[in-house]
Amino acid sequence: MQNFSFLNPTKIEFGKDKEQNIGKYMKEFGAKKTLIIYGSDRIMQNGLFDVATKSLSANGIEFCKIGGVKSNPVLSKVNEAINLAKKEGVDSVLAIGGGSVLDSAKAVAAGVKYNGDVWDFFTGKCPKEALMIFDIITLAATGSEMNGGSVVTNEATKEKFAMHGDCVRPKVSVVNPHLQASVSKEYLVYSASDIIAHSIEGYFTASVQPEIINLYIEANIKTVMKTTEILLKEPENYGARSEFAWAATMALNGLTYVGTAGYSYPNHMIEHAIGAVVDCAHGAGLSVVMPAWMKWYKSRNLKAFKRFGKEIFGVDDADEAIEKLKEWFSKIGTPTSLIEIGVDESNLDEIMALVYDYAKGRGLEQIYTKEAISEIFALAR
Amino acid sequence: MQNFSFLNPTKIEFGKDKEQNIGKYMKEFGAKKTLIIYGSDRIMQNGLFDVATKSLSANGIEFCKIGGVKSNPVLSKVNEAINLAKKEGVDSVLAIGGGSVLDSAKAVAAGVKYNGDVWDFFTGKCPKEALMIFDIITLAATGSEMNGGSVVTNEATKEKFAMHGDCVRPKVSVVNPHLQASVSKEYLVYSASDIIAHSIEGYFTASVQPEIINLYIEANIKTVMKTTEILLKEPENYGARSEFAWAATMALNGLTYVGTAGYSYPNHMIEHAIGAVVDCAHGAGLSVVMPAWMKWYKSRNLKAFKRFGKEIFGVDDADEAIEKLKEWFSKIGTPTSLIEIGVDESNLDEIMALVYDYAKGRGLEQIYTKEAISEIFALAR
Repeated sequence: MQNFSFLNPTKIEFGKDKEQNIGKYMKEFGAKKTLIIYGSDRIMQNGLFDVATKSLSANGIEFCKIGGVKSNPVLSKVNEAINLAKKEGVDSVLAIGGGSVLDSAKAVAAGVKYNGDVWDFFTGKCPKEALMIFDIITLAATGSEMNGGSVVTNEATKEKFAMHGDCVRPKVSVVNPHLQASVSKEYLVYSASDIIAHSIEGYFTASVQPEIINLYIEANIKTVMKTTEILLKEPENYGARSEFAWAATMALNGLTYVGTAGYSYPNHMIEHAIGAVVDCAHGAGLSVVMPAWMKWYKSRNLKAFKRFGKEIFGVDDADEAIEKLKEWFSKIGTPTSLIEIGVDESNLDEIMALVYDYAKGRGLEQIYTKEAISEIFALAR
Repeated sequence: MQNFSFLNPTKIEFGKDKEQNIGKYMKEFGAKKTLIIYGSDRIMQNGLFDVATKSLSANGIEFCKIGGVKSNPVLSKVNEAINLAKKEGVDSVLAIGGGSVLDSAKAVAAGVKYNGDVWDFFTGKCPKEALMIFDIITLAATGSEMNGGSVVTNEATKEKFAMHGDCVRPKVSVVNPHLQASVSKEYLVYSASDIIAHSIEGYFTASVQPEIINLYIEANIKTVMKTTEILLKEPENYGARSEFAWAATMALNGLTYVGTAGYSYPNHMIEHAIGAVVDCAHGAGLSVVMPAWMKWYKSRNLKAFKRFGKEIFGVDDADEAIEKLKEWFSKIGTPTSLIEIGVDESNLDEIMALVYDYAKGRGLEQIYTKEAISEIFALAR
């Protein structure tokens, strides 16, 4: 294993009714006034907003709010929220929603404490301080509830980039699988795709990949696949919903990367370019990209692909394993071809050019050459 | 999954040469004067003490020291160290050694801040504050480097009990697998036994045991078994040594217990009684207890035993699986019968009476009746 430092001080409050105590959790950190950040008005209609604010009030925490965060969250909304947070003088943000809402909240928390453009943090600068971040996560997928990452899209430049920093790790994340049961089947399968993508990036690309890490990654993938199939038939199955949620958290809380080296996130890189242009659901884009990228990449790490086939699908052949994954994506109902997510001749060149730009930004243009990108996209048709 | 709270803020500094920065890590937490706690003088001879104190001095941290902590650490030594720590006015403890040294350091850290007998914390009271705890862990086994537990023996009462508290979680734990390469083969296999014991307690006894948790536990067991066999042949194999070390940490940092319910630690309970009387190595005692306890217990959770057999040894039968584990313990060279660890007719009754006392203390005497304990010990002959 490579040398590493591991620190993950986020407290997870997992289970039924935990959101009723959000005010108590925040009070323990000294929160006095918070900005609630959310997406659609669904949290007003289903009572979650009331439950959360009742707990805030009971613990003497004032709040203001800003809604309207959408999937593939955008910089303009982040800036709007930063201005509001500054004006209101809040000490914390409370994200109520999925990964996009939490990612936006992280950007807001860092942006409020920064004299400059928050986009700096998505283009190389590391945030050093931030408001306290709390969340009630209503969609299991991104793992944002237990890490210091955030992905935001700059609409002006069509850049979908990531920020990382210890200061934007949530203090407390509430994960109530029951709240996640109302997620549509569409978003359930997109989430499954996203979690699998988080799992395989390092698994296939790392130059140093310890055996124990492979076993943990396979545990996450197996859990996600098994529970997705259960949840498609029984959305109210709490046991499956909770294991799905925990696999999502575990897939990107750092534990599947400790001791590894030399990995990259090519599937995310490619999907981010697609998402920046056609605004598809992140998981939908990933289930298109993954099988194509895997076909293109497999000869570079055949051993890992053969292992993947054996452990996940019980097959010996790498090509067969990739085909099985693609079939599984189709079976659960997440897209596997570009056309299904709105990519066609009219925007293909723009997307491929963007992928190349992203690759250059990451120093990966020797691997992801223009030719390579063309090949991958041809395999995704 | 059951509701749970998970918080593990210990920072792990893992890898080669990390101990050279111990002063820097401690300075980041504001440490100014520390008590170094250690076992034998081996750390003086091999240079580790010098490396650590050089780093302390370079970071302006004063230190005093107390050695002589032994395996199955004892209360009298803890009290001696508490008195020294109070006299010297230290703000922290630095454990350099294995789990016994770190467990002692945790007791010292809590005891210094407590107006009363530190043994109170081992008999029901939860420590609320403690000195800062840091460690350089030279033996992978107990997982103490990433949890809030400590096990100490009260020689006067022959009680080997545990303390738990968030305040005794280490701030920073240095895990350099290279430092662990000098551990004797005996202690390597005892450690393997200990890690497997941490893994199976919940696996077999929990009334609620999520699938994803089973997969993580199996990942830890597979890693330990594979790397132990490598290390017996190649003690200098850094890859295997590091995976062994990380499996030890992961096996008892809380992640294999989240979402579970209704578990107990019967193997540890029984071994602690044995250890309190005959002072055997903890892992040696456990490899004697486990196969016996498993034979006795298996009908109560046959499904888990069959799964264990299939996943770990590729066999379908529960009895065969237990026999395979026992054979594996023999193969690597850790004891599997009471006589090997010094238990005979002269002390058997005393030990069994102690097990029963421990069971009563844990409210488990309906399961671990005197007859049951006799049966288990008969199976361990």
